[in-house]
Amino acid sequence: MNFKAGYIQFCPDFCDPGKNIRKLDSLLKHAANADLIVIPELANSGYNFQTHDQAVKSAEDIPNGPFTRFLIGMAKKLDLYIVAGINEKDNGKLYNSAVLVGPEGFLGKYRKIHLFMNEFDFFEKGDAGLPVFQIKGVKVGMLICFDWVFPEVWRILAMKGTDIICHPSNLVLPYAQQAVPVHGMINRTYCITANRYGTEHHVTFSGKSVISDPLGKILCQAPEQQDEVKFIEFDLDLSKNKMITPKNHVFNDRRPEQYKGLV
Amino acid sequence: MNFKAGYIQFCPDFCDPGKNIRKLDSLLKHAANADLIVIPELANSGYNFQTHDQAVKSAEDIPNGPFTRFLIGMAKKLDLYIVAGINEKDNGKLYNSAVLVGPEGFLGKYRKIHLFMNEFDFFEKGDAGLPVFQIKGVKVGMLICFDWVFPEVWRILAMKGTDIICHPSNLVLPYAQQAVPVHGMINRTYCITANRYGTEHHVTFSGKSVISDPLGKILCQAPEQQDEVKFIEFDLDLSKNKMITPKNHVFNDRRPEQYKGLV
Repeated sequence: MNFKAGYIQFCPDFCDPGKNIRKLDSLLKHAANADLIVIPELANSGYNFQTHDQAVKSAEDIPNGPFTRFLIGMAKKLDLYIVAGINEKDNGKLYNSAVLVGPEGFLGKYRKIHLFMNEFDFFEKGDAGLPVFQIKGVKVGMLICFDWVFPEVWRILAMKGTDIICHPSNLVLPYAQQAVPVHGMINRTYCITANRYGTEHHVTFSGKSVISDPLGKILCQAPEQQDEVKFIEFDLDLSKNKMITPKNHVFNDRRPEQYKGLV
Repeated sequence: MNFKAGYIQFCPDFCDPGKNIRKLDSLLKHAANADLIVIPELANSGYNFQTHDQAVKSAEDIPNGPFTRFLIGMAKKLDLYIVAGINEKDNGKLYNSAVLVGPEGFLGKYRKIHLFMNEFDFFEKGDAGLPVFQIKGVKVGMLICFDWVFPEVWRILAMKGTDIICHPSNLVLPYAQQAVPVHGMINRTYCITANRYGTEHHVTFSGKSVISDPLGKILCQAPEQQDEVKFIEFDLDLSKNKMITPKNHVFNDRRPEQYKGLV
């Protein structure tokens, strides 16, 4: 099965959704031959808010805000699926969210479950579970940035049959790029970490967006501080095969009765 | 706090516990200045049994078998703690187990929860939970080889306060040496994978025993096919500090109510 997926690494402008739409309009054209492309966390708004006002003013309704509508337009025009991080406003509350859109329009969203540092000052914790979507026969799930520290959510998405875990990020430290391929390895999923670069108010983001396969192998990785649009062909047989050996299965070999204290 | 721990990588002789005692008697002397040393899986018996008889004949009672008694003797003599993989016989059943012994004698054992390949033909699945032991103020837990694929058990040991996860192994593939440091990173524990090398009945073991720190950094790693006794000083402040940032805690940030379907 022919399925091409990858990431856009870029540097969002702080609190300037219009500018970010223009940047992504240009970058997305290079992804026209992909089936699925992942864009970093908070791609509409930038990350490092100093005031609540900054966070609110750059947030939008999903799916009716201008950034989401732009993504839907591009997905239709280019005939591809897009996962992108969005600063979401809903009933006066903000969420650090990701959307999945495609040629047929808005498919769904994920709200970041594990918030990082000052995000607690601006965002509500995600409350909408870990949805999985089927596109072109491929199951896609979403996690956002700091979720990488929590093996629980990677496991749950994989147990729901996810082939590709899309991971929009604004990573500061380099650890996630080492850890995410291992989450994919032990769960037999593809992983796409779409990270941003650049600096906002003395915080520098680490770039190095990465695609890894269900054996934990890094298939490609971006440089640290520059734009990159990258997509490659995925072998979905690899993520659908959960046999580690002829006698060992990734999930059936789990022994939940021995996992006392885990939840 | 001054605490030195590490591994012995060696090649056990197949179905010859007496020979393995002699080999380890020689190797353990090089660990005399360590506080804790980890020895590979099934160190008394070797691994790749072709018949049930081979497995039974090289198994022993814990803690009264000769191999365990030898380890206790060495622990007393050298004033150190030892974790070692043992082919255990109990009431006619076999377990792929690990023991912890020290100067005060036998402290406890772990029985491998997740069996690999033909192990199902010889061993019962572990049924004795995931015990944690305190030695010199350091909390120590044990996992064995293929347990590396299951993030659940690393998580549970860490949530019980484990500083050092001892991981006696007979690894064939190279994946665990990539994954174990990440288990340590996301749980903020030290990990010691003590692997064997050599070949038994066309199965070659991959060596490369590894010590990693609570940030996922590999502190030292053995070559592929030779004996090595290695121990280094551990900074236990690192494993006891579970703050990722001033606002993020490895365990307190977990959101079990969002982890539906995990167990």
